[in-house]
Amino acid sequence: MITITFPDGSQREYNKGISSLEIAEQISPKLAKEVYAATVSGEIWDLTRPINSNASLKLHKWEDPEAKHAFWHSSAHLMAEALESLYPGMKFGIGPAIENGFYYDVDPGDGIVITEADLLAIENKMKELAAKNLIYSRRDISKKEALDFFSKKGDEYKTELISELEDGTITLYTQGNFTDLCKGPHLPSTEPLKAIKLLSVAGAYWRGNENRKMLTRIYGITYPKQKLLDEYLVFLEEAKKRDHRKIGKELELFTFSQKVGMGLPLWLPRGSDVRQNLITFLTKELRKRGYKIVTTPHIGNVNLYKTSGHFEKYGADSFQPISTPQEGEQFMLKPMNCPHHCEIYNATPHSYKDLPLRMAEFGTVYRYEQSGELHGLTRVRSFTQDDAHLFCREDQMRDEFKGIIDLILYIFKILNFNDFTAQVSLRDPNNKQKYIGSDENWERAERDIIEVAAEKNLTTTIVTGEAAFYGPKLDFMVKDAIGRKWQLGTIQVDYNLPERFDLTYNGSDNQKHRPVMIHRTIFGSMERFVAVLIENTTGKFPLWLAPEKAVILPISEKFNDYAGKVLEILNNSDICTLIDDRSEKIGKKIRDNELKKIPYLLIIGEKEVENETVAVRKQGEGDKGSMNIQEFVNFINSEIKKEIAI
Amino acid sequence: MITITFPDGSQREYNKGISSLEIAEQISPKLAKEVYAATVSGEIWDLTRPINSNASLKLHKWEDPEAKHAFWHSSAHLMAEALESLYPGMKFGIGPAIENGFYYDVDPGDGIVITEADLLAIENKMKELAAKNLIYSRRDISKKEALDFFSKKGDEYKTELISELEDGTITLYTQGNFTDLCKGPHLPSTEPLKAIKLLSVAGAYWRGNENRKMLTRIYGITYPKQKLLDEYLVFLEEAKKRDHRKIGKELELFTFSQKVGMGLPLWLPRGSDVRQNLITFLTKELRKRGYKIVTTPHIGNVNLYKTSGHFEKYGADSFQPISTPQEGEQFMLKPMNCPHHCEIYNATPHSYKDLPLRMAEFGTVYRYEQSGELHGLTRVRSFTQDDAHLFCREDQMRDEFKGIIDLILYIFKILNFNDFTAQVSLRDPNNKQKYIGSDENWERAERDIIEVAAEKNLTTTIVTGEAAFYGPKLDFMVKDAIGRKWQLGTIQVDYNLPERFDLTYNGSDNQKHRPVMIHRTIFGSMERFVAVLIENTTGKFPLWLAPEKAVILPISEKFNDYAGKVLEILNNSDICTLIDDRSEKIGKKIRDNELKKIPYLLIIGEKEVENETVAVRKQGEGDKGSMNIQEFVNFINSEIKKEIAI
Repeated sequence: MITITFPDGSQREYNKGISSLEIAEQISPKLAKEVYAATVSGEIWDLTRPINSNASLKLHKWEDPEAKHAFWHSSAHLMAEALESLYPGMKFGIGPAIENGFYYDVDPGDGIVITEADLLAIENKMKELAAKNLIYSRRDISKKEALDFFSKKGDEYKTELISELEDGTITLYTQGNFTDLCKGPHLPSTEPLKAIKLLSVAGAYWRGNENRKMLTRIYGITYPKQKLLDEYLVFLEEAKKRDHRKIGKELELFTFSQKVGMGLPLWLPRGSDVRQNLITFLTKELRKRGYKIVTTPHIGNVNLYKTSGHFEKYGADSFQPISTPQEGEQFMLKPMNCPHHCEIYNATPHSYKDLPLRMAEFGTVYRYEQSGELHGLTRVRSFTQDDAHLFCREDQMRDEFKGIIDLILYIFKILNFNDFTAQVSLRDPNNKQKYIGSDENWERAERDIIEVAAEKNLTTTIVTGEAAFYGPKLDFMVKDAIGRKWQLGTIQVDYNLPERFDLTYNGSDNQKHRPVMIHRTIFGSMERFVAVLIENTTGKFPLWLAPEKAVILPISEKFNDYAGKVLEILNNSDICTLIDDRSEKIGKKIRDNELKKIPYLLIIGEKEVENETVAVRKQGEGDKGSMNIQEFVNFINSEIKKEIAI
Repeated sequence: MITITFPDGSQREYNKGISSLEIAEQISPKLAKEVYAATVSGEIWDLTRPINSNASLKLHKWEDPEAKHAFWHSSAHLMAEALESLYPGMKFGIGPAIENGFYYDVDPGDGIVITEADLLAIENKMKELAAKNLIYSRRDISKKEALDFFSKKGDEYKTELISELEDGTITLYTQGNFTDLCKGPHLPSTEPLKAIKLLSVAGAYWRGNENRKMLTRIYGITYPKQKLLDEYLVFLEEAKKRDHRKIGKELELFTFSQKVGMGLPLWLPRGSDVRQNLITFLTKELRKRGYKIVTTPHIGNVNLYKTSGHFEKYGADSFQPISTPQEGEQFMLKPMNCPHHCEIYNATPHSYKDLPLRMAEFGTVYRYEQSGELHGLTRVRSFTQDDAHLFCREDQMRDEFKGIIDLILYIFKILNFNDFTAQVSLRDPNNKQKYIGSDENWERAERDIIEVAAEKNLTTTIVTGEAAFYGPKLDFMVKDAIGRKWQLGTIQVDYNLPERFDLTYNGSDNQKHRPVMIHRTIFGSMERFVAVLIENTTGKFPLWLAPEKAVILPISEKFNDYAGKVLEILNNSDICTLIDDRSEKIGKKIRDNELKKIPYLLIIGEKEVENETVAVRKQGEGDKGSMNIQEFVNFINSEIKKEIAI
């Protein structure tokens, strides 16, 4: 008999060799139908694998990432079987589960091309195979046998992979007529693979190396129920419509240029205005909350980064140093603003009475990313952090946390991010030597963060061992309009840089003391945040953020003079307004300008000229009646006030 | 007989061998006393040098730089004679005239140190020698004789210089007991050197090479009248008081850090606010005038600068290219914003109806300067240009010039720069092949600039041959409060980059056309402009630019609560305000805060708490009476409106 310990701590005795699936069945047949994988003593296993000694057991339902992983990994094998049956002689690379679904990299053989037009046939073949309820069976195999097997089959990619593995660790999985080199785990059978959809085809270099062969990558997703798949496909459609790269181009918000360089966004006027509206708004808020704004250059001498430790840690993977034509100096593009802010702190003496010092900068930083990792505005090589560093005494930390959380909650509220969670990252209490700073300070900072988060009614998860080596932190995740999670603001305590830069303040005891440094951002980066905003709003920004508040549409050229007068009055009243004085029919003008997502359309015809009014139409909603110009100015200002004064 | 042609074109006959001084005497003995040098057929000569053939002649009075140059160069020789008599065996390096006065680099010999305490004795010796009315006499000498002369004297610096000269070009000048290697020209005698002042002592490497010996550099200045010297010394004192580096430190506006790097300004909160106030103000003005704001990164691929031509032209003298850890890409810190703006222009199609496109950015650029050339904020390695590029049709250029000039005049007026001139730089009509662009376009652009400048009543000088190869330009020079001239705004036509970046617009003929590009700045750079503002205002910024508008001074701690309430109301009303709640006497608080040059001091005592008022004191002026808080808010807002709405 063996003892199985369940997640709630309860224990039960079973016969040696029992499987997780059998245990689930004993608990309840319904449960057995809902589980897809199991964690046995910390390792994720097939449900059917026999358990031969005492173990802890956690059964994974669909909600668990472990279940999805087994589900999608088994789906990749199913797709491979379908491909092999449709394209005999096809060679296989790797076929993993990913965040949403799975892919397989395959080599269809010379002259054979798989396109999206072929996906339906493959999908149908998969459905046919899945319906046979094929069993996934696991087999340990020696390295020699494995090499023999795949050599005979002619699968050169698999033999290359096997040649790098250690003998005694190799396993194969077989379902139906298909056998794959694989660590598992897998589902017991193909039976749960009820809803299947192949999504796209792409090229992918074998092992990500551009000097190796380009394979064909086929992406797919599967679900245990058709309803879940349908929902996902709707979500995918929705996400595609909201793609900030697509909207950014349509609404002329930003662009990229090959000549300037990949991952270096060029903000077009409309996008630059949205970005600046955010900066102006946040700056005003920061000033009210006692922050001081500084401005620092985008490069620093390498010595700055030797002092900070960044050079040693990240230097090799960064944009490389900048030499000078004379004098042998070397500079780095700044990857973060903190070292510059430490030097500003050190530029003047500080007394305990002057702290906290809240130093903020919208600082553009440069970090090298491989071109393949770049993605629109969410993964770039240059981005502007809404950065701040708070230098304070230990006894002020708690109030500073409170102030930062208040600010973050205020901003989230204004931007309608009402669904968010926070993660508290603490140090690993069993590995204290990994962290810099005294026990006493860590305990105090961790307690402060947890208590303040509770006081502010944040929904938090607390994770030990996830703190940075220099201090504990609190990260905010928001859910957008279609349920995707984005990490935005972060608050990080830092006991490291104050040491490295020898930051001090004069205490009430007239001795030198070390301040604590808190790094914090709210948006994270302006680039990423604008991308999130675009995807969340489909580019229909709230009025206060919109680059233009209104567009004037004269019904015919006769009214252009009056329209020009209205334009001037509005722009001089700081209501940024456009005019569409093309000689087009008013219907077309309205349709064209609705697409630009400018919040208000002001129609001008005979009646408006006579009465010195404008006919106001709200984007996406329609007619809002007539107003005189000053009424419209007041209306816009009061609408904006409503949005940003919650 | 020889014919002498005067600047007005008149000609007179003189005996061969006559000197410029003799000609001046024949014209009028008064004139002879007022001239210090002459330009003879384009070369600057001693007044006493005989003229042996037909020549043009211009006599130089004190106002001419040529006169000052001869005057101060002769003074350097006089100082050398004084030094040699006081420090026998002293060796001499070089002793030129400079923009204001002269210096001599000398090697006093081992163990002898000259300090500022010694200057008076040297000055007195100079006065004694000058009173002897010593004659400066010029002598041609062979290279061998020159080497012999200075070898015998033991002047190794002079022999080094002579060894590099060509035989047949060497001249000596002698006055009294001192003979120097020198090209001249000099005054006829020491007689006009009536007012003499030695100013300072510094170290200077021989030939500017840090591996050679450090010599002693003595600076001085002289004038023909004591009154002129007195005025200059007052000016020097005034300039010293206004030095933006000194005031920048006192008022905590900006700083530099060795670790960040020389010439890379760190803007402290107060300086950053002044800079931002300028940016916010100008941005608002730009929007009203139809500019679009863009935001671009601070680096660009080297290919961008190969396209623009900057790489070939400036690459070797710039910050060197930035490599990446992978993918073999190379980037440059951007030395200007125009190539990025051209790429933005090219990101969307343009029709003749959309032009002009006025694209503005406060773009921070990076240019390498040798450390010895750096000076406070006026000569830096990173600076933010208030840059704009106007893309327009040829027929729109005239209106665009007008618009830019209007903007510049408006900004100058607001900043009280009422004394300014403009320089029009045209191409050299005899060297048309040096310039890019068609004759027709150049002629039109030059005519437009000249006519528009006249229309706007600008005081202009027109200089041919000073245009850039890519187009004509108009530069603005302003005079500050103590009469110094600063070059600020510039307007430059560019026919080059539109070609290199293949910029086009779709004409009314539905053909592709090339737009003209106009570069323009108003401030030049934010760094340099803030420096000029500091020196012009001694750091006493106008209210709208001041980082804080007021500071609250409670008379005693009893009033701190009410003071805190006032502080909050003012800050929430966007009147940036500080509080000085130290437990100091009110007299000291007033004195301390007057020094910070915060425009208004708000005193709070018993009476103010009772009446809910503040006692308003204007910095540098004193009591302005009592106001309630809302009155003060309105007062500040109306004062600011007066300043910036001219």
